[in-house]
Amino acid sequence: MEFFYSDSIYKNKIVLDINESRHCLKVLRKKIDDDVDVVDGRGNLYNGQIISFENNKCQIEIKNKHENYDQRKHYIHIAISPIKSQNRIEWFIEKSVELGIDEISFIQCERTLKKTVKIDRLYKTAIVAMKQTLKATIPKINNIIKINDFLENCKEKNRYICHLENSLRKSLFSFDEKIINNKNCILVGPEGDFTIDEINRSEKYQFQPITLGSSRLRTETAGVVACHLLNIINDK
Amino acid sequence: MEFFYSDSIYKNKIVLDINESRHCLKVLRKKIDDDVDVVDGRGNLYNGQIISFENNKCQIEIKNKHENYDQRKHYIHIAISPIKSQNRIEWFIEKSVELGIDEISFIQCERTLKKTVKIDRLYKTAIVAMKQTLKATIPKINNIIKINDFLENCKEKNRYICHLENSLRKSLFSFDEKIINNKNCILVGPEGDFTIDEINRSEKYQFQPITLGSSRLRTETAGVVACHLLNIINDK
Repeated sequence: MEFFYSDSIYKNKIVLDINESRHCLKVLRKKIDDDVDVVDGRGNLYNGQIISFENNKCQIEIKNKHENYDQRKHYIHIAISPIKSQNRIEWFIEKSVELGIDEISFIQCERTLKKTVKIDRLYKTAIVAMKQTLKATIPKINNIIKINDFLENCKEKNRYICHLENSLRKSLFSFDEKIINNKNCILVGPEGDFTIDEINRSEKYQFQPITLGSSRLRTETAGVVACHLLNIINDK
Repeated sequence: MEFFYSDSIYKNKIVLDINESRHCLKVLRKKIDDDVDVVDGRGNLYNGQIISFENNKCQIEIKNKHENYDQRKHYIHIAISPIKSQNRIEWFIEKSVELGIDEISFIQCERTLKKTVKIDRLYKTAIVAMKQTLKATIPKINNIIKINDFLENCKEKNRYICHLENSLRKSLFSFDEKIINNKNCILVGPEGDFTIDEINRSEKYQFQPITLGSSRLRTETAGVVACHLLNIINDK
């Protein structure tokens, strides 16, 4: 089974872009009249049939549309300090999409070393991971903002912050009743952790301190582990 | 805090190799008489003091030795089909060491495309991840063997196999009483999954079928998720 991605979806027709068309026709050797499945990254899956191949672009007639194909009852938002290595950021995007994520924000903290993020490249990574894992939705990816602006504007009701300071930090499992079928946001800090000021300020905005276990994790690993835990708690 | 690694440990003295010595002296600007922490990858942490710098190698006098520094009550063994991309194998090693793993085996299944694994490079990756996460133990990494040989010789009492076939597959959480403080082994198959024959044969050797959740995961992600779940169940 294979999903194609397109953002050119019309009433009865889908057009694949040049890269997707090449993959469809040259690599997978699909022919006119073959059935294909296309997702739009917004939760819709289309079953269609190839009708032509014009200007190196594959044209598909829509036979069926499944709305909200991979809709879930819970919502996962991870707000993470960008890592210095773009590869490690892309890896975080790939793995969190595989596990299931709805929204990713980048936050600039006092100890964040990287000030910019290549959002376009991250969307490409997210699309590949979505297709690979047979999903129909690309997460929303928000460009970097200052942590204080993020705290003020966070929309999710259940809010958690992972840090390593010596204070009472609970396991996410102790919040499981709140987490199940709800909207959850977790903050993940930079290498070197959040500052005490940032932790105190987050608590004013109802972010609860949590621990991700006994190991000291890299930032991108902490992001993936946080995403995995929210999914496990909702899957159980 | 920073750990150095050495496999040249004598009665009262440690010698760092050229790379570790350069990192110690040029990057971290340590000087003679400075205190340093060294791990041997076999569970021992040494506190010491730099005494000299001969032939580009840093000599350290041992002040204290902590045996079994990161010993845990549980044992995690993941047996995984190697992935085609060496990068993705190295990523699996890095992340499983960060989360905590004791033994990694590579298994050649019917649908495994990669027939060899560069074990030396994987040990290097494991050493970097061990130091990064302030651990003292490198996992045992076993070279690739045929799945049937692995099934016959597996030493762990609790045995699980993750696959995607339509049969009764339980969550790892349903085995939590067995898993806690015990020796556990999980089999992770190739892209394209284990064959029915392999699954049936594993069940003869008491491997219980499990599911890792509702998402279709890449092989290396499944390996990390399996390792994370065993750690969570033991940490709870």
